[in-house]
Formats: sequence, structure tokens, C-alpha cells
Amino acid sequence: MPPRQVNIAVIGTGGVGTAFISQLETLSKRLASAPSPTSLNLVLLARSTKMLFNDFTPLSFTNWTSTLSSSTTPTPSPSDLASLLSKSKDPIILVDNTSSQELADTYPLILQKGIHIATASKKAFSARTTWNAIQSASANNGHTGGGYIYHESSVGAGLPILTTIHDLVDTGDRVTKIEGVFSGTMSFLFNSFQPVPGAGTGVPFSAAVREAKEKGYTEPDPRDDLNGLDVARKLTILARLVGVDVESPTSFEVQSLIPKELESAGSADEFLARLPEYDGKMKAYETTAKAMGGVVRYVGKIDVAKGEVRCLLEIFKVDHPIAALKGSDNIVSIYTERYGANPLIIQGAGAGAEVTAMGVTADVLRILRALH
Amino acid sequence: MPPRQVNIAVIGTGGVGTAFISQLETLSKRLASAPSPTSLNLVLLARSTKMLFNDFTPLSFTNWTSTLSSSTTPTPSPSDLASLLSKSKDPIILVDNTSSQELADTYPLILQKGIHIATASKKAFSARTTWNAIQSASANNGHTGGGYIYHESSVGAGLPILTTIHDLVDTGDRVTKIEGVFSGTMSFLFNSFQPVPGAGTGVPFSAAVREAKEKGYTEPDPRDDLNGLDVARKLTILARLVGVDVESPTSFEVQSLIPKELESAGSADEFLARLPEYDGKMKAYETTAKAMGGVVRYVGKIDVAKGEVRCLLEIFKVDHPIAALKGSDNIVSIYTERYGANPLIIQGAGAGAEVTAMGVTADVLRILRALH
Repeated sequence: MPPRQVNIAVIGTGGVGTAFISQLETLSKRLASAPSPTSLNLVLLARSTKMLFNDFTPLSFTNWTSTLSSSTTPTPSPSDLASLLSKSKDPIILVDNTSSQELADTYPLILQKGIHIATASKKAFSARTTWNAIQSASANNGHTGGGYIYHESSVGAGLPILTTIHDLVDTGDRVTKIEGVFSGTMSFLFNSFQPVPGAGTGVPFSAAVREAKEKGYTEPDPRDDLNGLDVARKLTILARLVGVDVESPTSFEVQSLIPKELESAGSADEFLARLPEYDGKMKAYETTAKAMGGVVRYVGKIDVAKGEVRCLLEIFKVDHPIAALKGSDNIVSIYTERYGANPLIIQGAGAGAEVTAMGVTADVLRILRALH
Repeated sequence: MPPRQVNIAVIGTGGVGTAFISQLETLSKRLASAPSPTSLNLVLLARSTKMLFNDFTPLSFTNWTSTLSSSTTPTPSPSDLASLLSKSKDPIILVDNTSSQELADTYPLILQKGIHIATASKKAFSARTTWNAIQSASANNGHTGGGYIYHESSVGAGLPILTTIHDLVDTGDRVTKIEGVFSGTMSFLFNSFQPVPGAGTGVPFSAAVREAKEKGYTEPDPRDDLNGLDVARKLTILARLVGVDVESPTSFEVQSLIPKELESAGSADEFLARLPEYDGKMKAYETTAKAMGGVVRYVGKIDVAKGEVRCLLEIFKVDHPIAALKGSDNIVSIYTERYGANPLIIQGAGAGAEVTAMGVTADVLRILRALH
């Protein structure tokens, strides 16, 4: 029997994209020599301005960086890309390693054309209308002719969070509550600001932010982390999976850690220069937490019965799993009817190119299994 | 399009079996009304001596307990069962909710006949020869004509341990070390014997054993937990998944908590009556642990580079996730190349009929997706 052919189109060649391409190369070698072989053909490789595509002829993994750099073919618009990929004779998977809102908005159209999607992007899952359009178009929900879509890395990178919640819900369990630390940046900041006893001395909040930025743990402008929106986007995805129909990441309570006065205080550097003036407010949280025998952490919470989603600072006793989190790890506690008082807990690195790409590669495998 | 038909044969109607049948009923209703509907037909229901089977006509979920009790059809031998099920015109999944060694030994034959298997049993995965025969016969490894086999609940009940390790390995990560508490019974015993500071007062080890037995957390003879073999069987499964080729659960170091003198000391009651004589030895572990600022726990460990698998008592600092475990929860820390120094951690209830059945139901869903 000749190997089955599956085409892969990769958009985005940043850190996650580059790690994914490397994992894809390893995977394609393994699947080519499996008892029932599959040829995973990289047929399109694109970054924002240019792409490699040769009428579905497989591209070489060797020197793809320089080959792509010297390409003169412009990357088409997302809808033109959808038309192009829909001409594939073999099943085709679009791997979106960008954070492009325009590409994400095109997912429903892409799925309708029978193209499958694996992505680490959160962008498609924020607005309720796009979410609903994706649900209506995707083969995941049994829509004939639609493509499959998986996005494990959109929450907690490669940690098996979405897969696990799907398994719980699909087998008939009811999730009652989710709480956790969903941002590697927030995790690092608060572990530096107020470590648990025995794990070192804390630093002023502004110093923690500065250190996180220097280590590359924040967005170029740290306010894009401190406003809580990244956490809110992840909670929006989780909330919908467990049946809480939120409108958007800005439709519920999200505590911003940016002092009001600094919200539009010019550049990131100006912001960082003035942040120490506001250390006193964060210090007060620390003092209160300490008096209660705990530490303060930035968490996301979903209360399913109340239909309530919140991102906020909370105090946790030092023996609570959320307090004990290390480095820039994420943690998610999933409370369900079957698991009762003690939640199912998943924790580990929630950011980083390799583990994020891993979630995407696992999504590709899930699509391959579904296509079997 | 008429719904696709998939047949289900359920063996075992104990606690897990009963919970599974209830989950299957819910699942079959949901899939029957999905956009691309599937009819999940319960076509065979068996306990050790009798069964319900009517030439692949779907059985009713209503009153199955009494209908089965009044059946006069004897349950066939595992190999006759395999022949019977292989006559199914539609794809068929055998769900093994027993701990029958004979049935487990028949898995390779069952898979060769194209019958799929979902099971919570550990019995098939202990001996290297059976394991290898299963790998050679199963569709999981691409063997054309073979059935799929999934057994998530064989380790940590419904916790997503095997699925996660498969995703790690399949995407090209390398597991370097696994450690954790893999027995709800051991977890309960040591949380009673030496709780972390602030979580109550410890009791003598014999009293912890007695309480665990009274609460139904142990096997009828607690020695079947205390000998460490249950943990060893789970580690055998995990070791093989990460490339450590162990011979069997008795081929590596397994620390037994049964005093030598009591190994064959008559009945379970006689054993329990004499166990307090040996509390001093366990007390010494406690004292040592306390002096080191830690607690003693019974753990399983796999060191992949050394090819070493061990089950033993170890001391953990009180802020270690293994020390902080509650009740009868399980915890597994998976160290990999990609995750680096901070492991991926999964914890939660590792025993109980509902969560064990949930893992089996999720396995059925995995098979259904693969058959799509």
C-alpha cells in the first residue's frame, strides 16, 4: 500500500514556528517509516510578507530559513490562502503559528473549505461570533465536509489542559470550577515579588517587572501582560469549553496591574521608569497576605454555577498548590462532580517555544488520527 | 446519511463496570443526536459466570442488572469470546472492566481479529511477552487489520497520564525521569501516618492500615497493597512507554511494607492483629524524615538514562508537591528534555469507580475518533 499523503502549510516562522518546523521534520521521518506509513508533506511555508509554495510539491526542510528569505512570492491574504489550500488533492492541515487576528478571523472560512487547522493562537477564540462560526464549521462537531481544528497550546502551551477538559466533558463529567495561574509572566512576577517562605527574598514589584522584561518573559511593552488580557483570553476559551457563554475577554472582571496614571504613560521605558512610584500599593497586598499566612498571586477563576469569570489578585495559604508554583510555571485546578473536593491539577511550563510547538505538533497528530 | 453503527461488548459489572455502563448510556444518547450521529450499540454484557447476548441485537440499558441476573447463558472463555465478537458486521469494542488475567492474556488474539479494546486492567501489561504481542497486533502501531487498544485507567485511573506521555513521546520529546505516588491506598496511608505540618496529627502505621481497610481503600487483604506490587505494575507500564524495557513488575527493586515475619501470617485479620508489633520500624522512618524537615512517602521512580525502575519509601521536603498531596490522591511528575528542571505534574484522584470508568469511556471515544 502506498503511504497516505497529508499536506501541511505552515504560517509563521518566529520562535514557535521554527520549533514547530523542527518537530515536524522529526515527525515526518518517523511517520514515513511507520508500519502504515504517512507522507507528511510540507507544501507551504510563509511568514508575514513572503512564502514558499510550488503547487503542492513538497518543500525541503533543509535550509528553509535562507530559501524563504530569498523567496519573491508574496504571502497572500488569508482568504486567498484559503482558496489556494483548498485546491490540495490530499487532506491539508494549516498550522498557524502567528498571532494574526486577520488569519484567525478567517478560520471559519478555512474550515468550511475542509482545511484542518492546528494553532497556538488565542486570537480566533475571543469573540463569541467567531467562536460560534468555528463550532458550526468544524468537523470536531461532526459537520460533514468541515475541517478539524485543535488549539491545545492556546492555553498553558503544551500542558494537556484543553484535551483533559474535553475528555471530562465528553465522558459526561461536569466541571464546576476552574482556577489557576495561566500566565508564565504573572507566575514569574509573583514568585519574584513574594516567594513562599524558604524560597528566597522578595523584590519590589517594579523590580520584578524589570527583571522579567530583561529575561524576555514579558511582551515588549510589559503593560500587555500586566493588563490581564492575556489571562482573560485564555479564561474565555476555558469558560466556553465548560459551558459558560462569555461575550469576550473584556466582558468580565479583569483586574489590571497597571496603575491608572501609567496606562498611557508613553513608551515601555517611560512606564518602567515611573512604576516604582506605585510599589507601595503592591506592598500592601504583600503585607496583608503575609498577615494571613499566605502569598498573593494573580489568578484566573471560573465558577460554572454562577456563570462567573474573573482575573484578579488573590491570597493563597503557603501550602496551597498555587502558592507552591515555581519559576514561570502555570497551574490549573479543575474541579468536577466526579473528582469532588480534590481537583484534578495540571502544572508545568506554560510558555516557551519548544513546549508551545509541542502542543501544536500534538494537534497535528490528533488531526492525523481523526483522518485515519 | 444513516448513523454509523459501533458495537460495544462490556465484560465486568463490578463498581467500575456499573459506572462505565451508566456513562456509556449517557454517551450513546449524546452521540445518537450529534450532527454526524453514531449508534453505540451495547451488544454483549457479561460478568464472570453469565452474559446477555442476542446475536448483536442492541441490549436495553434499562434494568440490565436484573436482566443479567436472570440470564441462563454462560459467559464463554476469552478465546471463544474473541471468536464470537469477530463475527460483528460493524466495528466492535471490547470493554474489559475485570481484572481477569485470562482475559488479559487473550488481548493479542482479540486485537488480531480486529476487535478494539478499552480497559482499566493492568493485567495485560505486566509480562513482557504479552506486552510485545499487544504492540505487534494493535492498530495503534499501524498494524493493518488489528484493533486499537487504550488503557488510560490502568495508571492513575482517569488522570490523563498515559495520553500525556504518548503526546510527549510522539511529538519527539524525551522523558528523562518519572516519579510520583501511584497508589491511592499508599497516598492515604502516609497522609494519615505522617501528615505535613498543619494537616493534623499522625497515627501509628498499623492504625493507618486498619483505618484504610475500614474505609474500603485497601484490597480485602491489605498485604496486596503493602507489598508494592500494584505500584510496580503501574511503573512497568510507564517504563515501557518511555523506552525502559523491564521484564516484569517483579524484575526490579520493590520495597515491601509487609514485615518479613507477617508475609504469610494467616488471614488478613491475623495480619492486622500483629502489625502493631512492627510500628517501631515505621516510626523510625518518620523520625528520620522529621529531622530532615520532610515526610516519608511511598513512591515509584523511573530513571530513563539509568534504565532504573524502583518502588520505595523516600523522604520529601514539606514544600515538595509529593509531600503536599492530599487524601488518597495520586501525583505524577514527568521530567522531559523540553520541560527541563520543572516537571509536568498531574495530580488528583487515582482511584474510585466513577473516575476509573471515565478513563475507560475516554478510551472508547479515542477509538471512535480513530475509526472515523
